[in-house]
Amino acid sequence: MADKRTSAYNPVTGEVLTDLARILGPSGVSSDPEKRTAYSLDDTLPRFEGEYLAEAICFPESTEQVSRVMKYANDNRIPVTPRGAGTGLSGGAVPFRGGIALATERMNNILEIDMANRTLTTEPGVVTAEITKFAKGANLLYAGDPCSGDISFIGGNVAENAGGNKVIKYGATGAHVLGLEAVLPDGSVVTLGGKRRKDVTGYDLIRLIVGSEGTLAVVTKIILNLLPLPKCVTDMLVPMPTIESATNLVSAITTMGGVIPTSVEFMDRKSIQNVEEYASMSIPFSDAGAQLIIQLDGMDRKSLWNDVERVGDICAAEGALEVFVAEDRNARDRVWRIRRLVAEEEWTGSMPLLSKEDIVIPVGGISDFFKLLPEISQRHRAIYNAYGHIGDGNIHLTLFPEAAESGDDLAASAESLRRELYEAVRELGGTLSGEHGVGLKKKYTGIFLSKAHIALIKRVKAAFDPNNILNPGKIVE
Amino acid sequence: MADKRTSAYNPVTGEVLTDLARILGPSGVSSDPEKRTAYSLDDTLPRFEGEYLAEAICFPESTEQVSRVMKYANDNRIPVTPRGAGTGLSGGAVPFRGGIALATERMNNILEIDMANRTLTTEPGVVTAEITKFAKGANLLYAGDPCSGDISFIGGNVAENAGGNKVIKYGATGAHVLGLEAVLPDGSVVTLGGKRRKDVTGYDLIRLIVGSEGTLAVVTKIILNLLPLPKCVTDMLVPMPTIESATNLVSAITTMGGVIPTSVEFMDRKSIQNVEEYASMSIPFSDAGAQLIIQLDGMDRKSLWNDVERVGDICAAEGALEVFVAEDRNARDRVWRIRRLVAEEEWTGSMPLLSKEDIVIPVGGISDFFKLLPEISQRHRAIYNAYGHIGDGNIHLTLFPEAAESGDDLAASAESLRRELYEAVRELGGTLSGEHGVGLKKKYTGIFLSKAHIALIKRVKAAFDPNNILNPGKIVE
Repeated sequence: MADKRTSAYNPVTGEVLTDLARILGPSGVSSDPEKRTAYSLDDTLPRFEGEYLAEAICFPESTEQVSRVMKYANDNRIPVTPRGAGTGLSGGAVPFRGGIALATERMNNILEIDMANRTLTTEPGVVTAEITKFAKGANLLYAGDPCSGDISFIGGNVAENAGGNKVIKYGATGAHVLGLEAVLPDGSVVTLGGKRRKDVTGYDLIRLIVGSEGTLAVVTKIILNLLPLPKCVTDMLVPMPTIESATNLVSAITTMGGVIPTSVEFMDRKSIQNVEEYASMSIPFSDAGAQLIIQLDGMDRKSLWNDVERVGDICAAEGALEVFVAEDRNARDRVWRIRRLVAEEEWTGSMPLLSKEDIVIPVGGISDFFKLLPEISQRHRAIYNAYGHIGDGNIHLTLFPEAAESGDDLAASAESLRRELYEAVRELGGTLSGEHGVGLKKKYTGIFLSKAHIALIKRVKAAFDPNNILNPGKIVE
Repeated sequence: MADKRTSAYNPVTGEVLTDLARILGPSGVSSDPEKRTAYSLDDTLPRFEGEYLAEAICFPESTEQVSRVMKYANDNRIPVTPRGAGTGLSGGAVPFRGGIALATERMNNILEIDMANRTLTTEPGVVTAEITKFAKGANLLYAGDPCSGDISFIGGNVAENAGGNKVIKYGATGAHVLGLEAVLPDGSVVTLGGKRRKDVTGYDLIRLIVGSEGTLAVVTKIILNLLPLPKCVTDMLVPMPTIESATNLVSAITTMGGVIPTSVEFMDRKSIQNVEEYASMSIPFSDAGAQLIIQLDGMDRKSLWNDVERVGDICAAEGALEVFVAEDRNARDRVWRIRRLVAEEEWTGSMPLLSKEDIVIPVGGISDFFKLLPEISQRHRAIYNAYGHIGDGNIHLTLFPEAAESGDDLAASAESLRRELYEAVRELGGTLSGEHGVGLKKKYTGIFLSKAHIALIKRVKAAFDPNNILNPGKIVE
């Protein structure tokens, strides 16, 4: 949309399209209106539908093509927004300043699995679940596990440092990245890291690019660390009387229990009850203050069972109303189905939405947060449900107006609500985003990051991208 | 030493000392000649004795004092080299351009252990082993474990992203850092991360500062992640017929074995035989091609024993000459004593030294490297022994002249040997430094990093430190 493009940038003219087609071939560029709309969206709620529009989409098939497109765009001051599967939740792939949407979907080959080094090398446009499956075929684990893994691209996971259900044990996407090939905004190609597992030769630019939301470089190749594949997995569904007792349980398991579970997921009472209504199902203890899903994995059943018993004992000691243990595939699927339905219900919900949050709070502060939350939401006449990755303090909070009438200014309500909410999160040592990214929530970064910190981020961005052509308008801009 | 200072910088005059004393108090600054020598050294071999000299040493006691010193130095263009315990092995704490040595030894308080969040907050001047001990007292593990942990400071570990024996399972120092308070070269203070376990709000500047060898910021506070304390540990000493079979064993354990050991250390035949001579002891199978130390840890003896048996079976299948299992403290100490003596022998050795290396090679390429090494060393009339962290491919290789005569130009021999060695390492996908840092080995970075990569590092450095006053002359400068 031309009005979003500032005078710092040039438009994608017919001549530009011709030049791009020279780099990418005629099928490698499109300015088809439907495609422009489709490649300008992601899955952020509330949707950015129609707000921002790419002027052209490029479909490179090689690092060299990405490099040439970047050099061209840099020389001609045309914004470029890199894009994976468009499953992001913060507008990271939304072309805020128009220009080129750089789609990585044709760079979709898993290049190698190296057993001696336990690594997998891939292009960015591969669906995450395919990588997991490929590794599993070699009896290895790719431990990155974003909830959208069935549809997201690994390149997007890297760009956003995607989290998911297993971060408490295995870390977010960045923890699994050993090497990157990346194209800088001026078109130069850098190879960072490799199959080696230790490297202090120069700065850790890998971790800087991971999670930079496509603002620093376009990732064209990724070397992932793989782990031994756990041979057995057990899930436990644990209704707890209150959120406070649920939080205490998380700390107790990982300290005195001596176990770091694979996942500790959480759903509040409202989330559970929403699912009961949405899916017409009955969930035991649906009036419990919170339900936890605790997953443990291991290499043999006996050792795993030791952990399950230890965790079960701690659950009981911390006041669990019940401990349902799911060992076989069917029982485990039933447990996780509840968790999936919580997210699905929101997507298909017909209620107007105020805000969908991805806040993080240190685990020790979560119960304090949930004491403040009813007051804050009441003050803004909002209702909410909360769920997410309580093991690492990452809470997905969804806020709705208590009673919406047509003509209500939802955006204004959301704005004042968010500001108060974020102040509370900051006071508890938390932050704005745990795994979705800042993206277009950039106006709130000032609540969490100091002026000196934001100035530093801007200087680092300029060190990579002096002309600000790569995904402009995101994070702190 | 004035001749190392370039015209870009101003000298530390009497007036400067007075100004610094105004910030730090009279006992907070020293220009005593003995101190200047002592605070200009680290443990790099061959030593930099007398080569570089700080003009003054500052001993700040608070973040505010660090901030004021940095602002003063930045305004007055005086180089500042931050310093931990001076146990570094690459010259990171050596004041290449003179100026101020900023000693962190008075910022030596562990500030807090937070059980609910499993975190420890500390000042930089605390000895690493004290942190380990403090965490252990709370039944928790600080999993950073540099070999110099008994004498190194945690601040230095962070600056160098120190590795050690447990990286294969737990990662290097950076993997344990949740938050940093850091003073930028202009004196501004930034707080990055915190007790939260997930954070994508802005770029990952923590990992950028970790391992930046004190060139980007002075770390004044560190929040560390702690883990459950393993309740039992077993070590295995495994003589293998060849380095090749030893390398294959590492891959076999972590892939088909399904176990990531806590440590997999390695000593070649020459290292073992050096220790036999040095300590007048007899080591079984001292003519084996390589000896591995494999450590496993776990929460209960039964589960651990399952792993020990599985690993033992794989050792046998891969051709181990013997598998010595050390369960009790005494037996375990005897195993690790050999590993410690390998390093000690070099320190006290009277032989002239050509070079001490910290190279990394992807595990799958290690046996190829050891096939090339005899040829390379013969060509340069060098002998060598090798040991280190084979689990993550980090090899400490020590090279001596075959026959040294007084008048030999050891520096020139070392230079040509290193260049050929590094080319071989690069060809195998390896790199210059795994855990010691680049520091004053900076002239070799061009062998491993492309021009575009080095240019990017320089731009990132300038984004933090436009006047290049913080630890100038290191990494790529």
